[in-house]
Amino acid sequence: MDDKLMLMIPGPTPVPEKALTAMGRHPIGHRSGEFSELVAEVFTDLKWLHQTQNDVLVLTASGTGAMEAGIINVLSSGDRVLVGSNGKFGDRWAKVAKAYHLDVQTITAEWGQPLDPEAFREALEADTNKEIKAVILTHSETSSGVLNDLETINRHVKAHGEALIIVDAVTSLGACTVPIDDWGLDVVGSGSQKGYMIPPGLGFISMSDRAWKAYERSNLPRFYFDLGPYRKNAAKNTTPFTPPVNLFFALQASLRMMRAEGLENIFARHDRLKRAAREAVKAMGLPLLGSDDCASPAVTAVAPTSVGAEQIRSVMKKQFDIALAGGQDHLKGKIFRIGHLGFVSDRDLLCAIGSLEATLQSLNAGNEPGAGITAASKILNAG
Amino acid sequence: MDDKLMLMIPGPTPVPEKALTAMGRHPIGHRSGEFSELVAEVFTDLKWLHQTQNDVLVLTASGTGAMEAGIINVLSSGDRVLVGSNGKFGDRWAKVAKAYHLDVQTITAEWGQPLDPEAFREALEADTNKEIKAVILTHSETSSGVLNDLETINRHVKAHGEALIIVDAVTSLGACTVPIDDWGLDVVGSGSQKGYMIPPGLGFISMSDRAWKAYERSNLPRFYFDLGPYRKNAAKNTTPFTPPVNLFFALQASLRMMRAEGLENIFARHDRLKRAAREAVKAMGLPLLGSDDCASPAVTAVAPTSVGAEQIRSVMKKQFDIALAGGQDHLKGKIFRIGHLGFVSDRDLLCAIGSLEATLQSLNAGNEPGAGITAASKILNAG
Repeated sequence: MDDKLMLMIPGPTPVPEKALTAMGRHPIGHRSGEFSELVAEVFTDLKWLHQTQNDVLVLTASGTGAMEAGIINVLSSGDRVLVGSNGKFGDRWAKVAKAYHLDVQTITAEWGQPLDPEAFREALEADTNKEIKAVILTHSETSSGVLNDLETINRHVKAHGEALIIVDAVTSLGACTVPIDDWGLDVVGSGSQKGYMIPPGLGFISMSDRAWKAYERSNLPRFYFDLGPYRKNAAKNTTPFTPPVNLFFALQASLRMMRAEGLENIFARHDRLKRAAREAVKAMGLPLLGSDDCASPAVTAVAPTSVGAEQIRSVMKKQFDIALAGGQDHLKGKIFRIGHLGFVSDRDLLCAIGSLEATLQSLNAGNEPGAGITAASKILNAG
Repeated sequence: MDDKLMLMIPGPTPVPEKALTAMGRHPIGHRSGEFSELVAEVFTDLKWLHQTQNDVLVLTASGTGAMEAGIINVLSSGDRVLVGSNGKFGDRWAKVAKAYHLDVQTITAEWGQPLDPEAFREALEADTNKEIKAVILTHSETSSGVLNDLETINRHVKAHGEALIIVDAVTSLGACTVPIDDWGLDVVGSGSQKGYMIPPGLGFISMSDRAWKAYERSNLPRFYFDLGPYRKNAAKNTTPFTPPVNLFFALQASLRMMRAEGLENIFARHDRLKRAAREAVKAMGLPLLGSDDCASPAVTAVAPTSVGAEQIRSVMKKQFDIALAGGQDHLKGKIFRIGHLGFVSDRDLLCAIGSLEATLQSLNAGNEPGAGITAASKILNAG
């Protein structure tokens, strides 16, 4: 059946009709008064969503581009950085840092395990000469469905006193609280096709006052990703280079929807969906990759043993037109991932769980039929 | 009257309904088979449009991002580059080169004048030690409406033997011929909101075999803009980072339309629109910024003397809802620019000229009423 695809991947996430309709509008001039008015509204709403008084700068780039911009605007050649890596994206930030000749020290954990805050404390306390200029880590590790303990790690960074904290919040922002100003998160990057409920194409980056001071000292080469001109132009409700105006239309629409739902409700919904997904998966007899106490609100990784992950994804796609994500790198074929990020309702989750139960039945791999739906319903009904 | 805006600026350009409708479709997974099929078609059509057998790499970035990628993937720190600058964009590439600590030598011309190919010949012939590693120039200078003589300058670059040629074809690609392979253009950058007839958000870059050899030697730091992974992924009809899938939908639709129209017809249409715009402006008694023999096929810059450029733009916008571009930097307030790039028909041009005549009449600034339409009609009817 055509046109019935349901996206349950951790990005691109489903897009509401209001945002899609806005996307399909005819572009307007990006230097016009009309566009500046729209940009002013979007910038205000982004600050609200990011829980910060600082500018949330908008780049035409993927989340990786935004994160690279964050890293190269506050550091200088040879600077030592501590990078937390327990998945594909943590690995990626180490690669970015190395590409710019930073001195990279990594703290790792197995994919599916959270980063150990104690390891950060020890490394930071050992750095008595204050050589570590930044700690870079991923809040919600999309590749494994693990939420790292940003709050605790950040406390250790603050105790160090010198290092900035640079956070990949690509799949946490808009899914759980990331109180940028309250926690004093220096650099926070994210991307549009996630909690923002619009298609890919925009990267977001916020910088604290301390990060802007580091910017003044930073000597890494950049032009398109030089955040200074973005900040200067943001003050005039514009952008230094031609922005993707249609994605801004969509963003205006989705931010209005998020405002109407409210931050607390958005976070509660994601938490509920996460718990419902996990309890349902357990009830179906499928092993989860990570444990409940470090579960991402955006994506749940499942590591089936009695049947292949790719077999499950294949039936889900062919029979029910539901796209689930596969595993990445060494987890390819070993896990599948259920996205429940952004424009996802209780009904959507039940739909995915019901289809997953039917899939397991057809593969003779499930527990008691109905166990998943029963478990998910219990969570969703409890709110 | 709402929803009646007519874009006659050199980007964003008007977008056909087929592309807008495609833009408003629900995104699909960027790692799905369906998306790879779409990407395969788009990549094939881009090669056709760019007249090259090499990959046309697609970045989520503005044209500036694409050009920066082109520059930093083929050069190394301290390399000498010769940059042609006769407008805002030529100036910008010099700034990009300086940001990466390249040794920049500029050849300049007044805004509105073309770059002198002889100046390139002399500089390249004087470089007997072959220290110049690249010549960077803008083909169609959007800020002034001047088309630089790329063919001749490229011949001098080829005679030098060592230097690569890096071309900003942002507003020439899809408007006039840019025979990348025939001329041996090494690096060519462009952007989606121009001749491609879709909204902003995608940057395009092609690289010759010589450019890829230079890539192997190049030592400038980059990650998101490292073109190697784009090339590797292009071979598998995918992209290294999450692409803006909705812009790809639109691009598929617009490239199909361009295929149906045919390259020669597209170029002839732009040439006709350019000549009609210029003859009409002359007939209305308004001075053109540049001369006919170096006129851009994308945009016509007008430098009115008896009435203010901003006054004209203001009436055109308020009374007729036509967006014209203003001047940039020191030409702000001194010129206005009529875009006739991309999805622009003969009828659109007559519409703009008719409205401009009415505007001049209302400002008591025109020649004989009807002179502009008469002159434009003559060109358009002759084909």
